[in-house]
Amino acid sequence: MADSVIVDTRRSAHAALRPVPVASVVLTDHFWAPRLERNRTSTIPGQLAHCEATGRIQNFQRAAGKLDVPFEGLFAFNDSDVYKWLEAAAWSLASHPDPELDAKVDAVIAEVAAAQQPDGYLNTYFMFERESERFTNLRDMHEIYCAGHLFQAAVAHFRATGKRSLLEVACKLADCLARVNPGACGHPEAELALVELFRATGEGRYLTLAKHMIAVRGQKPALCGGGAYWQDHVLYTELTEVTGHAVRMLYLASGAADVVLEDGDPALLAALQAQWESFTTRRMHVTGGAGARWEGEAFGKDYELTSERAYTETCAAIASVMWSWRLFLLTADAKYIDLLEWTLYNAVLPGLSLSGTEYFYQNPLADRGGHRRKEWFGCACCPPNLARTLAQLPGYFAAERDGDIYLTLYADATLEVGDTTITVETSYPERGQVHVIAHGSARRLFLRIPEWAGGPSWHIVPLEDREATVTLDFPLTPRRLYANPRVLACRGQVAVARGPLLYCAEEADHAGVDLWDATLPAQAPLTEAPRPELLGGIVALQATGTVLEGAGPLYASAPHGPGQERTLTLIPYYAWANRTPGTMTVWLKEDN
Amino acid sequence: MADSVIVDTRRSAHAALRPVPVASVVLTDHFWAPRLERNRTSTIPGQLAHCEATGRIQNFQRAAGKLDVPFEGLFAFNDSDVYKWLEAAAWSLASHPDPELDAKVDAVIAEVAAAQQPDGYLNTYFMFERESERFTNLRDMHEIYCAGHLFQAAVAHFRATGKRSLLEVACKLADCLARVNPGACGHPEAELALVELFRATGEGRYLTLAKHMIAVRGQKPALCGGGAYWQDHVLYTELTEVTGHAVRMLYLASGAADVVLEDGDPALLAALQAQWESFTTRRMHVTGGAGARWEGEAFGKDYELTSERAYTETCAAIASVMWSWRLFLLTADAKYIDLLEWTLYNAVLPGLSLSGTEYFYQNPLADRGGHRRKEWFGCACCPPNLARTLAQLPGYFAAERDGDIYLTLYADATLEVGDTTITVETSYPERGQVHVIAHGSARRLFLRIPEWAGGPSWHIVPLEDREATVTLDFPLTPRRLYANPRVLACRGQVAVARGPLLYCAEEADHAGVDLWDATLPAQAPLTEAPRPELLGGIVALQATGTVLEGAGPLYASAPHGPGQERTLTLIPYYAWANRTPGTMTVWLKEDN
Repeated sequence: MADSVIVDTRRSAHAALRPVPVASVVLTDHFWAPRLERNRTSTIPGQLAHCEATGRIQNFQRAAGKLDVPFEGLFAFNDSDVYKWLEAAAWSLASHPDPELDAKVDAVIAEVAAAQQPDGYLNTYFMFERESERFTNLRDMHEIYCAGHLFQAAVAHFRATGKRSLLEVACKLADCLARVNPGACGHPEAELALVELFRATGEGRYLTLAKHMIAVRGQKPALCGGGAYWQDHVLYTELTEVTGHAVRMLYLASGAADVVLEDGDPALLAALQAQWESFTTRRMHVTGGAGARWEGEAFGKDYELTSERAYTETCAAIASVMWSWRLFLLTADAKYIDLLEWTLYNAVLPGLSLSGTEYFYQNPLADRGGHRRKEWFGCACCPPNLARTLAQLPGYFAAERDGDIYLTLYADATLEVGDTTITVETSYPERGQVHVIAHGSARRLFLRIPEWAGGPSWHIVPLEDREATVTLDFPLTPRRLYANPRVLACRGQVAVARGPLLYCAEEADHAGVDLWDATLPAQAPLTEAPRPELLGGIVALQATGTVLEGAGPLYASAPHGPGQERTLTLIPYYAWANRTPGTMTVWLKEDN
Repeated sequence: MADSVIVDTRRSAHAALRPVPVASVVLTDHFWAPRLERNRTSTIPGQLAHCEATGRIQNFQRAAGKLDVPFEGLFAFNDSDVYKWLEAAAWSLASHPDPELDAKVDAVIAEVAAAQQPDGYLNTYFMFERESERFTNLRDMHEIYCAGHLFQAAVAHFRATGKRSLLEVACKLADCLARVNPGACGHPEAELALVELFRATGEGRYLTLAKHMIAVRGQKPALCGGGAYWQDHVLYTELTEVTGHAVRMLYLASGAADVVLEDGDPALLAALQAQWESFTTRRMHVTGGAGARWEGEAFGKDYELTSERAYTETCAAIASVMWSWRLFLLTADAKYIDLLEWTLYNAVLPGLSLSGTEYFYQNPLADRGGHRRKEWFGCACCPPNLARTLAQLPGYFAAERDGDIYLTLYADATLEVGDTTITVETSYPERGQVHVIAHGSARRLFLRIPEWAGGPSWHIVPLEDREATVTLDFPLTPRRLYANPRVLACRGQVAVARGPLLYCAEEADHAGVDLWDATLPAQAPLTEAPRPELLGGIVALQATGTVLEGAGPLYASAPHGPGQERTLTLIPYYAWANRTPGTMTVWLKEDN
């Protein structure tokens, strides 16, 4: 049976690291394990119900000729939600066998397979009356994007269960694409998926197709619009910034990283490094979120990082995690895991309610009470993207190389890497102490030291006599974050973090206080207030701040006064919007 | 001959004030007079050339059957640009007879008249193959909006020249609309225009139609979309905020104010007052600009007033001036002129290059060098809107009531109000001294005291023995402006004003300095530096500030240091982007 690895670099010529199977990491912690269990028992079943209720499954039955009904859905890309659901379910099965879920997956796969055309074509939108439109509008219709999500689901299902049922469907469709060679899709996704399909099957034509889809971007005449929105305005090797639609940008960058893992293309690598620099030094919200603008769900200009209107789509944060993971496997550089972890806690996780049943599409950094999670969307990309990311999560906890095992994320867990068993004991992220015991033939342990703890780098521990025991104690002192003054929207403001968690202030902890009127003085000490009963168990932070009384004029000839003293309580940003709606802000006004 | 008044409230039952004719105010000053002359000799002729070159005139010839060519233009509303040009030319003729321009106006009117259909219908887009589409998509096609601009042009032409040629065209079209009674337009404009047409003709059915177009908004079923974008989500009397597309919102509010001037409708008035409050206390940029968002060219939420991405369309600022003028005539409240003046200098005027030939559509409050004025636009609403506003300008300088003459704006000028002659001598806005001499039978002079000089209110001077002489000296000390902390994007920042002028810092005065790295310390004195040779003659302001060296990290654990001392030079915001492109900012970081 294939191993349940995410991004299988085990035979990639240019990979620094190999991932470990999802199934080899058993999380037993207080933070992630309950979330993964909720994902399996609530989120994933609930999303299948939504897919059924909204006609997304029925679309396949229609395409198979079983039902004479119209295509359902506001958008042409509804198939992709089903594929992402399949991927989520597959990764969940990797770490938690579940016969009922397995049977549901098989049933959905049967519907998908039945809808496939004799020539391998599969997209339930382009059937019957729209058959003649196939491959006629690659820019807008997400036709190859849907195929990409099928490939990812198929690879996950194969790696998680060993079953080839969906993989065969995927290969038939990929072969169809390779025959037609229609060009690149307006919404990248297939690039990374095709590389994974190549890895799962060994079929070099899928890698070739992925490379082609990257190489044709920015050619003249334009293949998909010629605009930055589609990353089609310059050759990919000349794309030195993150721009346009954020999810498209980061899926494409992930695909390019996948290609570099295979062939080491220096021009692609240089572009990726420039894009990373652009993202992390000029176009990333403090949450790790990507995509400043509502217009076009797009990256803004340099330093355009507003709070209330931050778009920072949940899918874009997930795409960033995917990108970071690939760059990490390529380089073994801890900085990529630093961002991956930060993004996971502070940009991905806020997209999901604590109940696991409601979702954010956009993730603003400030709100006046109107922005709330929803159970589903007409454009439902984010919910199953969250589900698959959570289901994959154990696979992000480690990687290996030549007997060196890299511990990337921290939680109570047992990891089996080869014949080495690693046990991690910690109360991370609430507590900084991490105790690690390893037995086996591994040579060394590499423990990531986060940037906030002095890293990003590695604490290296050799195994002597097949054993190693190490305790790290990361300082979780609350710390203040300041944006570059060029981030006009964050001037005079401070954000607060503790360990890997970004904090925010929410009105639910400040009855009746408009938190946009609050100031956190520069010298105010931040004290820890463990609240095991609150929001699934958090360490709140408290400080004496001030709050203005009343709204005051819009513009005045003197700064607005400091207001009344008031205890300000901060909670992890991932936990916001799970209580009574009200004002919220990540950035607090700071008086000097 | 009709008087060249803008918004003719001379018979309006609920008007507090009556305007004075454009022709009765002769500006002789250093600031506005050259701009009006440039408007007449450069801007207006240049815009006619653009209208000709882009097929906008030809569209009328096509509609008249003179040419067998397609409709020209990206948008269905190209006619409105020609109408606004006619209005601009008409007002210009009011204050400056110009036989050549008069002849051009007559020629264009002849083309317009020839295109009118026998039933009065006139819209060059909905001709021939599109004739059957008339009045089928009021929401999107600007069909009645174009009619509104024709009505305004016709009224202006009639009042300025006494000629009825265009007025007759307008009345025939208005009668056509009154017969068809198609409902309200997705883009308001006709409402205010119909009230003016009523005033110019005495035909009550035009007023009735305007009232109807306001009353039907927000009805169920929706008449034009049902969305806030079109101000069609609630009844107008229940619209208590400025929302949706900013120009539509403010044209509609102007039309509602025109209706209140006529009938005093208390429900409409209450809505207008709430909208004003919403605008000026929560949704207005410090420039006076309206419309925060690029998406939908729309007002944002309360306090959503970012700098670099401020949309603040030039047309929206003009619409705000139109609204303020009507509310002023309704109430005689100086606060409306205060905003009108501020908006004129700081939100309308920046839309025009000093050359008078290039235009901004959007007016950001901060820029990194990429935002530059253009000679014309596919959607060319702003250029002729600027031209007509400048041509109208003398009419905004005074109003009257029962022998009381209100001086609203200040410049060297001679005003004839009835038999009273008023001479104003001043170097406003660069100098604050205003010397006024009046001769005649007027009872009192009301001189506006701007808010920044202790107002908004009136300095009242009786005429004794048919004479009055008064000198006011408004303090022009540079002053700092601070936004309400709820304006997240302006926290920790300061803007600088002097008199009615808002200032900004522009890289052209700071060779190579990125002004987004600059800090203006809270205690730094601002000194005046007259620069008669610069940007048409300005009083620059200077202060010792600091500038960071290098970009620095995006996020850091301590505030970015103060940097190196450096003299910062500020110029009036209206004059920005007339030199070498570079960084610019209205809001400067302020250290406490």
